[in-house]
This record gives sequence, structure tokens and C-alpha cells, in this order.
Amino acid sequence: MTTPTTGARVSEVRVTPILITDPPLLNLQGVHQPLTPRTIIEVHTASGHVGLGETYGDTEYLDAIRKVAPHLDGVEVARPTALKALIDQILGEETREAATADVPASGLRGKRDLAKLKASVFAAFEVAFLDAWGKVLGVPVHALLGGKVRDRVDYSAYLFYKWAAHPGQDPDAWGAALDPAGVVEQARIFVERYGFTSIKLKGGVFEPDAEIAAVRALREAFPDMPLRLDPNSAWSVETSLYVARELTGVLEYLEDPTAGVEGMARVHAETGMPLATNMCVTGFDEVPEAFARRAVQVVLSDHHYWGGLRATLDLAAMCRCYGVGVSMHSNTHLGISLAAMTQVAAAVPNLHHACDTHRPWQEEDVITRPHTFTGGAVEVGDEPGLGVELDREALADLHRRWADSEVRDRDDVAAMRVVEPEWNAPRLPRW
Amino acid sequence: MTTPTTGARVSEVRVTPILITDPPLLNLQGVHQPLTPRTIIEVHTASGHVGLGETYGDTEYLDAIRKVAPHLDGVEVARPTALKALIDQILGEETREAATADVPASGLRGKRDLAKLKASVFAAFEVAFLDAWGKVLGVPVHALLGGKVRDRVDYSAYLFYKWAAHPGQDPDAWGAALDPAGVVEQARIFVERYGFTSIKLKGGVFEPDAEIAAVRALREAFPDMPLRLDPNSAWSVETSLYVARELTGVLEYLEDPTAGVEGMARVHAETGMPLATNMCVTGFDEVPEAFARRAVQVVLSDHHYWGGLRATLDLAAMCRCYGVGVSMHSNTHLGISLAAMTQVAAAVPNLHHACDTHRPWQEEDVITRPHTFTGGAVEVGDEPGLGVELDREALADLHRRWADSEVRDRDDVAAMRVVEPEWNAPRLPRW
Repeated sequence: MTTPTTGARVSEVRVTPILITDPPLLNLQGVHQPLTPRTIIEVHTASGHVGLGETYGDTEYLDAIRKVAPHLDGVEVARPTALKALIDQILGEETREAATADVPASGLRGKRDLAKLKASVFAAFEVAFLDAWGKVLGVPVHALLGGKVRDRVDYSAYLFYKWAAHPGQDPDAWGAALDPAGVVEQARIFVERYGFTSIKLKGGVFEPDAEIAAVRALREAFPDMPLRLDPNSAWSVETSLYVARELTGVLEYLEDPTAGVEGMARVHAETGMPLATNMCVTGFDEVPEAFARRAVQVVLSDHHYWGGLRATLDLAAMCRCYGVGVSMHSNTHLGISLAAMTQVAAAVPNLHHACDTHRPWQEEDVITRPHTFTGGAVEVGDEPGLGVELDREALADLHRRWADSEVRDRDDVAAMRVVEPEWNAPRLPRW
Repeated sequence: MTTPTTGARVSEVRVTPILITDPPLLNLQGVHQPLTPRTIIEVHTASGHVGLGETYGDTEYLDAIRKVAPHLDGVEVARPTALKALIDQILGEETREAATADVPASGLRGKRDLAKLKASVFAAFEVAFLDAWGKVLGVPVHALLGGKVRDRVDYSAYLFYKWAAHPGQDPDAWGAALDPAGVVEQARIFVERYGFTSIKLKGGVFEPDAEIAAVRALREAFPDMPLRLDPNSAWSVETSLYVARELTGVLEYLEDPTAGVEGMARVHAETGMPLATNMCVTGFDEVPEAFARRAVQVVLSDHHYWGGLRATLDLAAMCRCYGVGVSMHSNTHLGISLAAMTQVAAAVPNLHHACDTHRPWQEEDVITRPHTFTGGAVEVGDEPGLGVELDREALADLHRRWADSEVRDRDDVAAMRVVEPEWNAPRLPRW
């Protein structure tokens, strides 16, 4: 009997690296480059459907994805476990060295190891598999994840300290944001344009008091909005305690104030401030100790490295069981990732915080109808699969940019050196 | 746009209580009755498909299911969360008293509370929803659970001490098993007839030394088979320590030797014996403490009370993360439940032990092609839904038996009183 399951087998995989523009957003490591890589995956099935995936474009990920892609012919898109076994087999031990190399930009996403690389590669394909399978069956991806529990997914305004322009370029439309007034102005644009009802500020850029002042200015300008501050573990435990106390009652949660389970646990225990993380707990092996020690009160899920959409549900189930909150982390991304984030967020019952997204910072996209934020949310449609369609012309343009450029990795440190030649990734804690 | 998702709405629900024959199997509480209740659920969709579910038939469950059933009209079978919300609404606080009443038979499945009753009712319908939805889409249930990772699910021979006959009835084909020789003989029948490659003995019936002797006799007769012993928490910690030491190296795991996290943790810590449970940890709220204290090494999942097939996957993910094993518990059941157990077991990557099943003890069924065990396993098919079809004639017959009988609840204590009028559910620890 040929069921739709067995009918939907991979017939072709296309992997397209692209470069997309990125504003000069500042963080602990340095600054976003003018161009940053992403990888777009197309999984074609014998039935004539196409599933889409999007993930990191850095060499390490692109290489791994390109290693796996040629082996997927004939794999059932409804059987992700076959995919997992293949990835385990193909990305063997020899990948370990590359996976554990010290690439600063990834320091913003916690530990690095082979298991996490594999989880990222799996996730990229799993999304494409689910998209394809949803299209084969005529059902949305969220229905393959247990069904949506909401019709809109709330996202948060994601504020960054930023320069007015990349070095040598014209100022962008956003303008500079280097002090509380600039941050508040940026927030106003976000709120007016997209209706966001939560606000996050990427910190770790200026001295803690300057960032506390920015958060206070946001509180004054937006008295009722949940606020978050994320210094990417820039602070010592003592500094974290100080900031947590200063901002108690002001922040919804403080994100990764300091590095490591021990420090995080102390900051929470001594201040009661809820701590969120996408650095301290970024894989299942890090969960038990962090939960046992109450180091984190909100885990920022991210299907890109937790191992896909179903793994995100697993994480959410675990958080539910342990009374830990769930929200969502974001890196620079386009519409395929936003669609995947929205589908899984729609299916997580215990998602009680607005998700992070960088999406508004990206002016380009590779889908024909880029998402819109209304009231700060993305609607959860019932179109088959992810509900997005590839804009092949845009993809070709962005790939041409990649082919014509030498940029292959995101490297916030190198981008900062253009302005400050002596710049290095700061040793932690910076403050 | 009408997708298959929105097209598959409930148009009718049929709830049919039945009585099935059950041999005189002995346990701590007493003995299985000659007739025991089950509830069969049919969920009809507007698209003309029928989804099946099977669960406990006891009054408390039947009443709750009958309360919920009339409210399901128009609910999407692909949106179990809508079902969950409905159940929460309908089985409100007024059900609490019934749910926490002291019904001895359920003492074999751990704590009782309203949340667990709701989880059981949800599970019964969720299975039927998944079956219906699989049929609508033309895909097996396992494909809706992330895809099967195995094509056969191993089950364990489930040995019981038993009488040759129910009081006043003719002996059944199994014969008596009241000593080591009888237990070994029963095991031989199981292994010859079904090819089982793991063996479990329900204990808590005789003094610990007698049961140790039975396990040793099994080890001698079946030198290579994993063995398990389950006294349903009949023992004190001291007795558990004694048995664990006596049977170290003989048992694959010891199941619920003693009641409660503290005792279980001590038995494991002091003997190293892996402990399995379907009494100490039977709901998500019991997981954190039990895992933290290493009270259990194998959780026996059971979709009937953990809250369904997807909840079983959640539990499995949690066990994977915490390095705790997963196996499967069983009560007296028929083929719809076996199909559901097999579908979810097929999708759990970290299922490394054969699952329990009472199925061979039941001579009746309500499906047209009852499962067969080959090499101790059930094959995982790719037919749509659960892959089983209702035998309406058999269902009608078994329902008529229910209608003609006064048996409404499983009550092992009452069944034992027929023979021993002074019998009571033993106070724990019995030994």
C-alpha cells in the first residue's frame, strides 16, 4: 500500500548559501557585519512538492549541510529519524575539531560541540521535511506538531545599540542608538511600525549603568510593556546582582547576565530576578543541572540549534514539567525561519512570553510574501506546510551576492576591527 | 481554504462500555474478576472516517467520558488542545471527590487525583482523534508522532500467579501457577506461543522468598531472557533491599518494590538494582523529585493515564534528557489499546526494554483482525490511523454482556472475597 507517507520521498536537495544585509547592530562581541550569511535549503519530493529550510550560513554549517545533502535521496520526509541516523553517520568524529574551534560569534549561543552542530544540521532539514510533508498532506506544519494552541504568535521588539551607518556607508533609515534617548526612539519606531507589545534590549555593549539608564528610559516611555535586557553574559556575578537589584520590578526577565550555572543560580537566588537564557542552557544535556540548581527561570528555545521543531516541543514539555518558562531566541534570519518559529510557537501551550525575532532588521527576504507584524504578532495560518513560497529571483540575487563576495562567516569581532583595529572579543566577565 | 485539518471535525461520538473475560490472575490486591469493564470510543468525522479509542471501563472513567462525549461535535480531530480545554471545562472541580475516592484496584496505578482522571479521559479521546486524523490523511498514527524508529515493537511475557479457575467455573486453558514450577510452565506457554524474549512476573502475592524462588526458576529455565519482578510496592524498604540483593544480576529491573520516592531511592542507592515504576511516578508532577533523588531508573509509560500518545513522547523526551530508561506499563486491555501502545512505542527512540502487555490473557477482542505476536513483537504497519477496524458484532456482544451484568468496576478485592470472605486490601508494606 502506498500511503502518502511512503510516497513522499526526497528526490532532490538544493542548498543555497546567500548573503543578506544587516545593520550595524552592536553587541558584546562587536558589531554585525554589513553582510551576513544564511543557508537556504530546498527539499524536493518525488511527488513534486518542495520543502524549505533556513539556517546559519557560516562555513562550518554550510559545509556540514553540503556533506549531508547528497545522501538524502529516497529518504521519507515523514521519517525524520532516518534523517537523524544519516547525519550521525555522515558527520562523524572528524567534524569534531571544526565544531569545537573557537569562533567568537557563536559564543553568543552558548557551548559548541559536535552534538550541537549535528542538531543544527538536523533542524535545518527537519524544517524542510515538515514543510514538504505538510504540503503533501495539505496540512500546516503546526498540525504535524500537535496542533496550534493560538492563532497569533507574539514577538518582541528587539532593540540594539547601533551606529547610524556601517563604516564608509550612508546612514540607514533606523539611525543611531547609542544612549537612552536613541534606544527609546528606536523602540518607538518598532512599536509604531509593528505594534510590538514587549521590548528587549541587547546589552553588554556599554557599562552596566548606561544600560540600566536605557532600560529605565524605556520603562518611562512604555510604562506597561514587559522589558528585557540581554548582556550576553558580559557581567560578573557581583555586577549581575547589582543590575538585577536595580531593575527588580522593571524587567520581565534578565537574560544571561553572567556565564555559567553557578553564577546564574546565585544571581537568581539572591535577587529573585527571573533569568532567561540562550547561553547557559542550549542543549538537553545542560538541562538537568541548570534546572536542579534553579539557574534559569525561562529557557529561550531556538529550533535552529535545539534540534528542530519537535525537539522544541520536547524542551517545552520539560520546562512545563519543571515549572520553568519558555520563550524564543533569535539570530539574524529571514522569512523561512520566521515561518518555522511561528509554527512551533503556535503549538507550544506553555509559551507565555513574546518570542524574540531579528526579522524587522532584515530588509530582504527569500519568500514571495514576507510576513507582517500586526499588533506585534504574526498570524498562524492554515496553509499547507510552513505557508511560505520561495522567491526564486530574490534567492538567485542573494546567492549571486554570496558568490561575488568573500564573506563566508559572521564575525562580529572582525567587523568591529574595521573601526577599532585593536578590538578583541572581550574576556568574560567584561564588567 | 478548507484543508484536511479543518475538514476533519467530529460529527458523532459513540461510547460503548463492555465487559470482557479475564482469568483469575493474582496480585497484591486480590484477584482479577471473571469479567472486567473497558470502554470503547468511536469518533466519527464529518468526512466519514471513524477513529477508535479504548480505556478503563470503571464507573468513574465511563461517567467522565460520557460527560465529555456530547460536547465534541464540531471539534477538529487535528486540534487536541481544543479537546483538552473542553475536558478541563467539563470535568470541573465537582469531579474531584469521585476522583480521589479510595478505589482499591487503582492503587496499582499510583496516585489518584482529578488531573490524572482528566489525563485519562483526554488520552482515550486523543487516541481516537489521532486514529481518525490518520485515516483522513491516509497516514499511520506513528507518522503523526514524529515517525516510527522501528518496524517491530517488542513485548514482554506477563506472568501471573493464578488459580486454575475462577470460583465455581471450569479450569481455563492456562492452568494454575502457584509455585515456581507453575510459573515456569506458564512462561513456556508464553514463549512457545508468542515468542516473547523478555519475561515479567507479577509479584506481591506470596512471601518474598517464594517469589525469589520463582524468579530463580525462570532464570534457570530461560538463561538468557531479561527478567522482571513487580510486587506493586508490597514490601518494606528492608524487604526490598533483601530481594534486590538476592536478585542482583538476575533481574533486568525490579518494579515498584516499595512505596514512595524515599524508599525507592534508598533501595536503588544501597543495592544498585535498577528500579522501574508505574506507581511512584505516574504523572508529570511526580517526575522532578523522583528524578532528582534517583528513585527510578525506568519509567513505565502508559498513554492511558499519562495523558495520551503525545504526552508519552513528552515523558520519553524527559527520560532521555535525564538518563532514565523508558518501558511501558499495561492493564487488562484489548486490541485498540495494543494498537495505540504499538504506534507510540514505535516512535520512541529511547525505548530499550520490551513493553508490558496483558493482551494474551484476553481471549476476546473488538477489532476484526486481532494482533499476533511473532518473536514476541507486534509489527508496526503503515496502514492509516491505528491500522485496526472495529468488529461491530463483537462490540455489540460484549456490550450486551455489560448491559446484562451488574459488574461495573474492576475490584480485585471483592473478587478475592468470594473465596476469602475476610480479605481486605493489604496495608503496605505487606512484607
